[in-house]
Amino acid sequence: MNILITAGGTSEKIDQVRSITNHSTGRLGKNIAEALCKYPSMTIDYVTTPTAVTPESRENIHFHFIESTQDLFDTLKHLTTEKNYDGIIHSMAVSDFTPAFSLSEEQLEKSIMQTPLTATLLPQWLEQNSEYPMNDEKISSDTQHLLIALKKTPKIISFLRKWQPKAKIIGFKLLVDVPKAHLIEVAKKSLQKNQVDYIFANDLTQIKGERHHGYLLAEDGTIKEAKTKKEIAKLLTSVIIEPSFFD
Amino acid sequence: MNILITAGGTSEKIDQVRSITNHSTGRLGKNIAEALCKYPSMTIDYVTTPTAVTPESRENIHFHFIESTQDLFDTLKHLTTEKNYDGIIHSMAVSDFTPAFSLSEEQLEKSIMQTPLTATLLPQWLEQNSEYPMNDEKISSDTQHLLIALKKTPKIISFLRKWQPKAKIIGFKLLVDVPKAHLIEVAKKSLQKNQVDYIFANDLTQIKGERHHGYLLAEDGTIKEAKTKKEIAKLLTSVIIEPSFFD
Repeated sequence: MNILITAGGTSEKIDQVRSITNHSTGRLGKNIAEALCKYPSMTIDYVTTPTAVTPESRENIHFHFIESTQDLFDTLKHLTTEKNYDGIIHSMAVSDFTPAFSLSEEQLEKSIMQTPLTATLLPQWLEQNSEYPMNDEKISSDTQHLLIALKKTPKIISFLRKWQPKAKIIGFKLLVDVPKAHLIEVAKKSLQKNQVDYIFANDLTQIKGERHHGYLLAEDGTIKEAKTKKEIAKLLTSVIIEPSFFD
Repeated sequence: MNILITAGGTSEKIDQVRSITNHSTGRLGKNIAEALCKYPSMTIDYVTTPTAVTPESRENIHFHFIESTQDLFDTLKHLTTEKNYDGIIHSMAVSDFTPAFSLSEEQLEKSIMQTPLTATLLPQWLEQNSEYPMNDEKISSDTQHLLIALKKTPKIISFLRKWQPKAKIIGFKLLVDVPKAHLIEVAKKSLQKNQVDYIFANDLTQIKGERHHGYLLAEDGTIKEAKTKKEIAKLLTSVIIEPSFFD
C-alpha cells in the first residue's frame, strides 16, 4: 500500500533571516505515520519541514523536506506524477499567503507622494509593486513601520483529487474558537469543494499536547469523534486500511 | 560567576496560527553555554525559545523560555532587576518589527474609498489602524492580497547597559552578503551606540552548520576572528573569563 502524508507547517520567506511560519509541531503526522507503518507492505512518502517532529526512521518511510507552499506544491506534484497512492493524508498547516513585496514607511510615502492611493488604483498598485521581487537580503530596520503585502498561495488540497483520482484523500480543516456546528459546516464545504473523501475538522482551542479533539467527516455525512492524537491516528488508519469502516 | 545568555530567534504572532519568525537554530548559544558551564561556580540564565536547540540540561543552567521580542524585553528586565551579571551574551536573533495591524485587500479598498491615502495622511492612517489590535483568531483566507503593517520593537541591546552598568556585555550583528569593511563598520557603530564591550559581527553567507565565520570587535578597536561555532564559543568564553584577553 502506498501512502502519502504531509505534516508540520510551511514557512514563507520574507527575507534571508525572517519568515512567516504556520505553527504545527508535526506531532499528529508522526502519530499517523507510526500507526500506519506497522502494517505489512506499507510504503509511506512523508512530506514535512526541517523543524517538524518526525516519525522514527524506518525503512518504509521516505522523507521529503520542504519549506514553502510552493515547495510543497512542486514536491506533491512530482510525487503524484511518479506514483499512485492508495491514501493521502494532508495534515500539513499550509500558508494561505506568501510575501509579494515589502515597503518601508518611507518607501510607501514616496510611492503615494505624487499619486495618492485610491480604491480604483489599488489593484494596479498591488500589481506594480509585486513586479519588484522581495528583497532577497535582510530588510533594513531603519524605519518605524514596515508594510508587507502578501498574495494568495495555490490551495494545495484543491489539486489532490486531480493529481490522484483514485486515492482515498483525507484533508484537514483547522479553525479557532468556533461553535461545533460552524466547524462542521466549514469542513463539509471543504470536503465537497475539494472532492476529498474525508475532512478532519479541528479547533485550535481543543488542541494541547497529546489532547487533540476533532471530528472526521466522511463524504456520506457520517461523523466520528476523536479526542487525542493517538485516537486520530487510529481513526485515520482504520479508514485508510479498512474501506468499510463507515459502512 | 553569573552569566546571562540569550539564544535562538524570536517570533511575533500574526494571529493564532501564524507568526513572523527570525531564523536561528540556537546552536551557537548552546555551544557558548556548554563552554562556559564547565567553569567552577558558574551560574547561567539561558533565555531562549521553545523551538531552539538548547544546551544539555545541567544544574547550573536555568532556562527561561520566551517567544516575542516583548517577552524577551520583560524577561531580561526582570532578570537584570533581580540579579547582577558578570557577563551578558546576547546572541538571540531579535525581530525588529512586530505586527501592528492587518488588512485584507477589500478592507484596504474600503478604507481608501472615501479618502485616498496621501503621503500627508500616512502617519495618521498608520496610527488609526494600529488602534485596532491584530485579529486574535485566524485571519480569513478569503482575499487575494493581505497587507500586514509592522511596527518597530524595542531595541533590546540598547537597554542592556542601563540595566547592568557593570556587566561585560557581548552583542551580535548579523548582516547578509556585505563586504568585510562594511560589516566591521556597522558592528563598530552598534558597539558605540549601545555601549557594549564587544560585538560579534557575522554574515549569514558565512554561516553553515558548524562553520560560522565572524569577527569579535572589542571596545578598544581590537578585532579577533573565529571560523566555527566552537571557536566563537572559545573566544567569547576567554573574554568573559579572562578580562585581560585583549590586552
